[in-house]
Amino acid sequence: MRAFVTGGAGFIGSTLVDRLLAEGHEVTAYDNFSTGRRVFVASALRNRTYRLVEGDLLDEGKLRSSIRGHDFVFHLAANADVREGLKHPRKDLEQNTIATHNVLEAMRLAGIARVAFSSTGSVYGEPAVFPTPETCPFPTQTSLYGASKLAGEGLLSAYVAGNGFSAWIFRFVSILGERYTHGHVVDFYRQLRKDPKRLRILGNGLQRKSYLYVQDCVAAVLHAVGHTGPGLHIFNLGTDETVTVNESVSAITRSLGLKPELSYTGGERGWVGDSPFILLDTQKIRATGWSPKLTIAQALERTIGWLAQNDEALGGRD
Amino acid sequence: MRAFVTGGAGFIGSTLVDRLLAEGHEVTAYDNFSTGRRVFVASALRNRTYRLVEGDLLDEGKLRSSIRGHDFVFHLAANADVREGLKHPRKDLEQNTIATHNVLEAMRLAGIARVAFSSTGSVYGEPAVFPTPETCPFPTQTSLYGASKLAGEGLLSAYVAGNGFSAWIFRFVSILGERYTHGHVVDFYRQLRKDPKRLRILGNGLQRKSYLYVQDCVAAVLHAVGHTGPGLHIFNLGTDETVTVNESVSAITRSLGLKPELSYTGGERGWVGDSPFILLDTQKIRATGWSPKLTIAQALERTIGWLAQNDEALGGRD
Repeated sequence: MRAFVTGGAGFIGSTLVDRLLAEGHEVTAYDNFSTGRRVFVASALRNRTYRLVEGDLLDEGKLRSSIRGHDFVFHLAANADVREGLKHPRKDLEQNTIATHNVLEAMRLAGIARVAFSSTGSVYGEPAVFPTPETCPFPTQTSLYGASKLAGEGLLSAYVAGNGFSAWIFRFVSILGERYTHGHVVDFYRQLRKDPKRLRILGNGLQRKSYLYVQDCVAAVLHAVGHTGPGLHIFNLGTDETVTVNESVSAITRSLGLKPELSYTGGERGWVGDSPFILLDTQKIRATGWSPKLTIAQALERTIGWLAQNDEALGGRD
Repeated sequence: MRAFVTGGAGFIGSTLVDRLLAEGHEVTAYDNFSTGRRVFVASALRNRTYRLVEGDLLDEGKLRSSIRGHDFVFHLAANADVREGLKHPRKDLEQNTIATHNVLEAMRLAGIARVAFSSTGSVYGEPAVFPTPETCPFPTQTSLYGASKLAGEGLLSAYVAGNGFSAWIFRFVSILGERYTHGHVVDFYRQLRKDPKRLRILGNGLQRKSYLYVQDCVAAVLHAVGHTGPGLHIFNLGTDETVTVNESVSAITRSLGLKPELSYTGGERGWVGDSPFILLDTQKIRATGWSPKLTIAQALERTIGWLAQNDEALGGRD
């Protein structure tokens, strides 16, 4: 496979790139380094079948010339800053919706017709059914991030129907593991590094969510692509467990040997657009033969271990 | 109400504007006249509480300055050219998705928090449930038009959740009636005017669809807005009947006194992304007390009558 990975220097993208390279594929990573990191591509750069393009998906010229000659696109680049969506309302539109349009058009013009896409369980908004299946009642959006990923899904589906594309849409829960730089675990970790005695928690701590280990995530993506035929495929990706924010806090503080005083901003939701309960029905992806290898607790442990070894070196920024 | 109507010179928009003016509201119509018509705003222009702004929704400066001072936005402007979506893949993105983002942002900046939006039954793609309710299983998109309207719905929903907006989303079936300038009836009408002996039909003629009379449509929009509280409201809009394309053809040829030879392009779908069967469940909007006054047959008759009197004068273009 000659794979083109957008967001290939990011948390999940760079992990996927390393896995593809290990499996012997040719890989081009395309990244604007807005949240991607040089250190995440360091090992890939030692591989002769790897190419790194520093480019933005809004730069259609660069994208179109870079994408030529590939036969599969993993479109993982995105603004993943769900919480701050309301502060920069055009960011999700540009970096998620318009960027996805640009990727699909570049593919069409280059004659590439297979694409995998990182969507999100956030497209379910606040669902009425748990665990939430891919075919749950038509949801409504509660965040600009969810809305932009839904828009991306719609574009992919229309390219399948109209241009003979094959598309694999993955609705991720939050992903944990090595190279994790963004989300509640790193927020808690950094707070405690600054002040080990105090921890401020968004919401009431009772939000219950599912998480997935990053290696299980990229294994699922590659497994699903390898075990399904052409057409449109939509898969939830997650574990069958949940943990509450309070349980995450316990795991983190226990792992760091700290007993901070906890304070809560209160309310069922950590922020506007937060879903108090996320648990996806993963029967469909499991039916292809994939299952996660790590529990959420194990994934959390790896994440904290990685942060302890790397976050300071990375400058403690997203 | 000080209403701001995007697409206010179009088929449905100008009909809504006339209704709002008749009810005593102040109205600004904002239109780029890409498909809007001067003749559709002629009567409105005689009204002292009417203002017409010739502007594009992609011109954010003009939009933002024009929208100030209003308290309700009817966002009807859109590229409605479903069939040709694949030929100009950026058009739906720009004129529907990005334009809707621009309208919502302009509203937010101007402190306007109530919006009605013309979505479409096309967001259901090819549903498995008929009549299709608003809460049918999470659909997939079959056209760029449907995808762009779904994206618009997602944006509205996110502004309701995040910015305290109230939004009324209407999923229209195809609309018929006076000022109809675009769709299968006008296509058939123009073919027959050119050559009364032959009529070419896209698909196999068995596509079954629901339609709604334009005055019933704008009445439903205003009724729903007037009879529901704040928050997010999603309503299907249609009749409980369907007609096949062949039945439309019969009505048109009978009305014109013609017996053309029919030819079919074949296939269940008239074009890529066409839905062979459209019938929306309208229980929800009917529960607010609205019901359509005209049958599809009556709406077809009015449409043909209007075309006979107006299409040539309008130059026979969209």
